Amino acid sequence: MIDCAEGTQVQLRKNKIRFSKINHIFISHLHGDHFFGLIGLVSTFTLLNRTTDLHIYGPKGIQEIIKLQLRLSNSWTNYGLFFHELESKESEVIFEDEKVLVKTIPLKHRVYTNGFLFQEKTGERKLNLDAVQNYEIDTCYYQKIKNGNDITLEDGRIIKNDELTFDPIPAKNYAFCSDTAYDESIIPIIKNIDVLYHESTFLQSEENLAKKTLHSTAKEAATIALKSNAKQLILGHYSTRYENIDLFKEEAKSIFPEVYLANDGKSFEF
Amino acid sequence: MIDCAEGTQVQLRKNKIRFSKINHIFISHLHGDHFFGLIGLVSTFTLLNRTTDLHIYGPKGIQEIIKLQLRLSNSWTNYGLFFHELESKESEVIFEDEKVLVKTIPLKHRVYTNGFLFQEKTGERKLNLDAVQNYEIDTCYYQKIKNGNDITLEDGRIIKNDELTFDPIPAKNYAFCSDTAYDESIIPIIKNIDVLYHESTFLQSEENLAKKTLHSTAKEAATIALKSNAKQLILGHYSTRYENIDLFKEEAKSIFPEVYLANDGKSFEF
Repeated sequence: MIDCAEGTQVQLRKNKIRFSKINHIFISHLHGDHFFGLIGLVSTFTLLNRTTDLHIYGPKGIQEIIKLQLRLSNSWTNYGLFFHELESKESEVIFEDEKVLVKTIPLKHRVYTNGFLFQEKTGERKLNLDAVQNYEIDTCYYQKIKNGNDITLEDGRIIKNDELTFDPIPAKNYAFCSDTAYDESIIPIIKNIDVLYHESTFLQSEENLAKKTLHSTAKEAATIALKSNAKQLILGHYSTRYENIDLFKEEAKSIFPEVYLANDGKSFEF
Repeated sequence: MIDCAEGTQVQLRKNKIRFSKINHIFISHLHGDHFFGLIGLVSTFTLLNRTTDLHIYGPKGIQEIIKLQLRLSNSWTNYGLFFHELESKESEVIFEDEKVLVKTIPLKHRVYTNGFLFQEKTGERKLNLDAVQNYEIDTCYYQKIKNGNDITLEDGRIIKNDELTFDPIPAKNYAFCSDTAYDESIIPIIKNIDVLYHESTFLQSEENLAKKTLHSTAKEAATIALKSNAKQLILGHYSTRYENIDLFKEEAKSIFPEVYLANDGKSFEF
């Protein structure tokens, strides 16, 4: 989960997202609309009898905020609660497992802020079942084949791996960048990204307000997408002053073609 | 406002309660379902350009929780934010103005908890317009009359106040008691209360659970209402295990006649 505003629990329930699926929470910065719901979620996990570890990644101070409230409410968690506090101004790897690697994207905002880059790892190769059965290869070699190895048959013939497998599903990358002023220094980190979420609090008509508050306009978000050679751009974090968010899409599309609008409860599949 | 759970802002909007009407917030105790929405409300007041002072009354520690979060988010309030931290285990007056007096009601729960007693002050007497006009009393004496004074006419006649006024609207008292175990020591504080809100987390069938968690059953709440000589009882804070909250009313009514069920968004007029 990325960020956790007040009422996130309610939204999770409304959108039928299972609480137990959440094991890592990445908090971009300590403004209320990005973390005020965290303490509630942490507490609810205890009420739900969670036992699995929970990892929280966020700016230095987040541990103090959560632990102070737990302490003063004479509460605790039934599960392991681990904080990974961030202070670096350079991009760094903060999580890695066999499927994904997560890096910070230092952003430019009014407080210390990070975006997050999720780099999916290329999975194993897909078995060509017709081919392996044709060569009468025993199932105990299947994992070896999926790992990319060639196979020596009993008669001594060597079968090349690409005869036995198909390419794996291509790994995809996702970058989440909120909140931030227009900042080209993030481009090398998110270069060739598949999906870029970039905030667009304002339209270009409020460019000055964007500069003043260290937020971005839709045009600026699209410019970052273009210069990063992103495949797709999702906009979000619109100021409530705008009644019609389609204007954000219009503005961004004048710069970059593949634009989507994030909104409450909306889900995207890539 | 009494207590402020996560999402209170949303509920206020949904129920069309003006944010600017809230100048004093009384927090009973530092369990999440009673204060996790406070930091969000405090922050939203700033976004709404509030300038009026806000007073928060609650257990020691509440100031640290709110200020830590404001400091770490590099935020501030545009308005005066005053904390009145409570530590006493005896009932004490914590607020008084010309209309109302507020006292704590020490409760018995798993953390330091107070209920709150709101004692309305008797208002000024109502002017009997026919009478004052009949005696040709100048309007500049009206306030003096409403304050209960007799009047000496120019011809020396003394007109008794009760000839010139009607009794004021009777003052009412309201006691809010959540969360608490059954505790008769609160009875002297809330004696003869007009409206008692008393938590009833459980039904009597879960009496043991109520004892263990220091909550009350509907029957216990009704017993407190009866022994306090309350006029009306409002129940609330039901455990989510019960699908039909009418059972709470039934159980309480077997002990005390005037029972109402609190619920999300419900309002009562007395």
